[in-house]
Amino acid sequence: MTDRIANSELRSKLMSADEAAQFINNGDTVGMSGFTGAAYPKALPTAIADKAKEFHSKGDEFKINVLTGASTAPDCDGVLAEADAINYRMPYQSDPIMRGKVNSAEMKYQDIHLSHSGLQVEQGFFGNIDVAVIEVTRITEEGHLIPSSGVGNNIEYLEEADKVILEVNEWQSLDLEGMADIYRVPHLPNRTPIPINNVGDRIGNTYIQIDTNKVVAVVETNAPDRNSPFKEPDEISKQIAGNFLDFLEAEVAAGRLAYDRFIMQSGVGNVPNAVMAGLLDSKFENIQAYTEVVQDGMLDLIDAGKMTVSSATSFALSPEYAEKMNAEAKKYRDHLVLRPLQISNSPEVIRRMGLISSNGLIEADIYGNVNSTHVGGTRIMNGIGGSGDFTRNAFASTFISPSVAKDGAISAIVPFASHIDHTEHDAMVIITEYGFADLRGLAPRDRVKKMIAVAHPDYRPLLEEYYERAAKNKFLQTPHDLATAFDFHVNLAEKGSMKG
Amino acid sequence: MTDRIANSELRSKLMSADEAAQFINNGDTVGMSGFTGAAYPKALPTAIADKAKEFHSKGDEFKINVLTGASTAPDCDGVLAEADAINYRMPYQSDPIMRGKVNSAEMKYQDIHLSHSGLQVEQGFFGNIDVAVIEVTRITEEGHLIPSSGVGNNIEYLEEADKVILEVNEWQSLDLEGMADIYRVPHLPNRTPIPINNVGDRIGNTYIQIDTNKVVAVVETNAPDRNSPFKEPDEISKQIAGNFLDFLEAEVAAGRLAYDRFIMQSGVGNVPNAVMAGLLDSKFENIQAYTEVVQDGMLDLIDAGKMTVSSATSFALSPEYAEKMNAEAKKYRDHLVLRPLQISNSPEVIRRMGLISSNGLIEADIYGNVNSTHVGGTRIMNGIGGSGDFTRNAFASTFISPSVAKDGAISAIVPFASHIDHTEHDAMVIITEYGFADLRGLAPRDRVKKMIAVAHPDYRPLLEEYYERAAKNKFLQTPHDLATAFDFHVNLAEKGSMKG
Repeated sequence: MTDRIANSELRSKLMSADEAAQFINNGDTVGMSGFTGAAYPKALPTAIADKAKEFHSKGDEFKINVLTGASTAPDCDGVLAEADAINYRMPYQSDPIMRGKVNSAEMKYQDIHLSHSGLQVEQGFFGNIDVAVIEVTRITEEGHLIPSSGVGNNIEYLEEADKVILEVNEWQSLDLEGMADIYRVPHLPNRTPIPINNVGDRIGNTYIQIDTNKVVAVVETNAPDRNSPFKEPDEISKQIAGNFLDFLEAEVAAGRLAYDRFIMQSGVGNVPNAVMAGLLDSKFENIQAYTEVVQDGMLDLIDAGKMTVSSATSFALSPEYAEKMNAEAKKYRDHLVLRPLQISNSPEVIRRMGLISSNGLIEADIYGNVNSTHVGGTRIMNGIGGSGDFTRNAFASTFISPSVAKDGAISAIVPFASHIDHTEHDAMVIITEYGFADLRGLAPRDRVKKMIAVAHPDYRPLLEEYYERAAKNKFLQTPHDLATAFDFHVNLAEKGSMKG
Repeated sequence: MTDRIANSELRSKLMSADEAAQFINNGDTVGMSGFTGAAYPKALPTAIADKAKEFHSKGDEFKINVLTGASTAPDCDGVLAEADAINYRMPYQSDPIMRGKVNSAEMKYQDIHLSHSGLQVEQGFFGNIDVAVIEVTRITEEGHLIPSSGVGNNIEYLEEADKVILEVNEWQSLDLEGMADIYRVPHLPNRTPIPINNVGDRIGNTYIQIDTNKVVAVVETNAPDRNSPFKEPDEISKQIAGNFLDFLEAEVAAGRLAYDRFIMQSGVGNVPNAVMAGLLDSKFENIQAYTEVVQDGMLDLIDAGKMTVSSATSFALSPEYAEKMNAEAKKYRDHLVLRPLQISNSPEVIRRMGLISSNGLIEADIYGNVNSTHVGGTRIMNGIGGSGDFTRNAFASTFISPSVAKDGAISAIVPFASHIDHTEHDAMVIITEYGFADLRGLAPRDRVKKMIAVAHPDYRPLLEEYYERAAKNKFLQTPHDLATAFDFHVNLAEKGSMKG
């Protein structure tokens, strides 16, 4: 497999993951590739975790700070968290073991807008980057890196790190070459416009150029991406998807959207899958996506001739679709562009595109403030990810969610959101299985009725009761009764249900 | 004065404000010029208010929707609100009478990011724009408009409105001509990069081109802008300004900022004035501002040779400095650029510039979530203005505020912000007279100590008590005790002080 390492200087640095882990020291800040379970390093995390365990068994300290593109996988975030090898982590995670350690205060986690993450690394907000650990598909003769299934913050970590460790993963298709579009936004104070006018515009190279002198190790791997299995959409998801499509149809009817060349952004999950299945049978043609991740549904839309191009920073495919991608990457790369995170999530480009964003939520309050991250205001699930980048800069922003969770114990519509990630200034349309609440052009008071209409019927009387109490306030721009604003959440914590 | 109306077609439409008001009907949506007390129409609002009163006296309905650039003045927002002539208002207001009507639910107010406002007008979110009422300095022979002391959303209103009413204000200096840089971001789906690479770049025309056929009336006025009097900074403001400068010095020491060509954005008020006075005596040279409004302090910095250029969308000057501007506009226009709001507040350009933002707040919570708008979560003061545009896209975002208000009855640092306009993902540095809390790179738990350190000493024990209680929560990413999270606010409402 060393034909994937065509550069002789770098080939001479081949070693095992355990040997490479020697370059990572206690207290180091390590920038890793990896985005939504794709393109993360497959070998070094376990080697680092083993090293940490060895240190800990001797009573010695060993913790590093880990910066990535977004979530990774059990064999990356999972093993490192399990070994208590992480002091600080940013910008997004979704691993169950890591989530537990974060919520029990055994490690620190900062939840950052993805478009800020690489930018703030280059601005020095996280101190020196000691090591970059980056997965690639192949190294060219010139020592250029061909990205694997994602780009994320790789450029920033490769540039800023003192030392670089490369993982060359044979599992990744060589036909991925040509899918990445590597463009470097110049550092401050020399930033210039990002010259993307259309979703599919290619403005850079197919490879990442690096300082090969910084490479201290090259490790060969052959392991699949995380690849969460695809779940067949359930009935509720299909209803929500139907309401999302109704919203799109209403936009067309209002003259604000065309059937041709609609641009979507989509979070990951069950409901987005249902939305994409719905688009397959819709009147929309030449659909484009300017988004974070390439999902199963997009490959279906491409196969059906309904989607012309999807621009993202990585894959988030099921095992079945990952195999399909590995077999047919040559075909799909005509329709896919993988960009650095600073560009896939760029406020500049997003606002230019005029897309409709669609992201999940944990809860929204009666005025449209959205909590994307913390159950009960205290327990973080994953993180804000890129939802803020897209929501703020979309043509129209939507949030999609079932109206209840945990068999009805948790309502997605609450009097006051217990953590706010998207404010009333940003969230425009809230969609559940009961319809869509279009909050655009409405003063806060006029949003309440619409929000209650998309709540689960069990919760509507409780929400109306709250609003009646709130409306007795002396000040009525955004009526609240703060003494009881969190009763839903207090009930949940004390009695196991928001109903009390 | 009709030499200010060089176009004969438009001169033929000269009439009184009362005559022009006939073109405005009950239920109309009216887009007006006006931004922070500058460049608002001086005559039509009173004429419309009189018309409304006449209708109301007969028992007839008369209410319009008013869209502007930002706040206006007593003779615009004030008279219209007083006459109950407004149904709906966006995107920002600061008039005491209007604020009262909004908080008593006698009119509707939607508080919108300023960079969204014009964009959403052209996207049709506010329905048809019936009339635009726009103040100008002069009309050229070709029928082009020379903007007066601000640009705001004028282009969007002029383009989208069915009918246009122009006010030509003789009070405005003819030497303002050349200060405005009118560039039209193409409508979706044809938006292109905004070609500004440096604060002072001029990329458009000095005039606004319009469809003169839509002009139904031209009205002559001779009246000053609102011009809030300048207040000499008090001791607390000077201390806050000192802490802001300490923060800048720390950035220089960390290698993240240079003394040369620092780019600032600044909200309006007493503390920003003190900051600019502090910059006069600082080591910073060739200061630039990419901001919303030109303030007194910026003219002082220009006069002192410390500031090379300020880019904004309007003036916000004291009467004394407005006179100075009227007398010396020819000199200042070499250092000032007035841009359309979509460009002064463009996330694209702001992120490209790498500026340090600085805005006021009503309260921030112990994790750095910021309330800019609502006292006690219900009573709106002014609005978010452009603070979201700048905060989200700044190199580093700061918020400045005295630690207490109302003789200590209100703390600026609270357990849970009662309304959230800027989330923990956006606010980076909180500055009071007690120092600066730099939250960058910190997990939420690690921010608490820093936030409490900048609280007023009277409130520190109460905040510590809350955090101790919160830290007993089972989930510790963002510890809270929701049952008591709003006790400060409940105390204030019930007992007149957050201390209880």
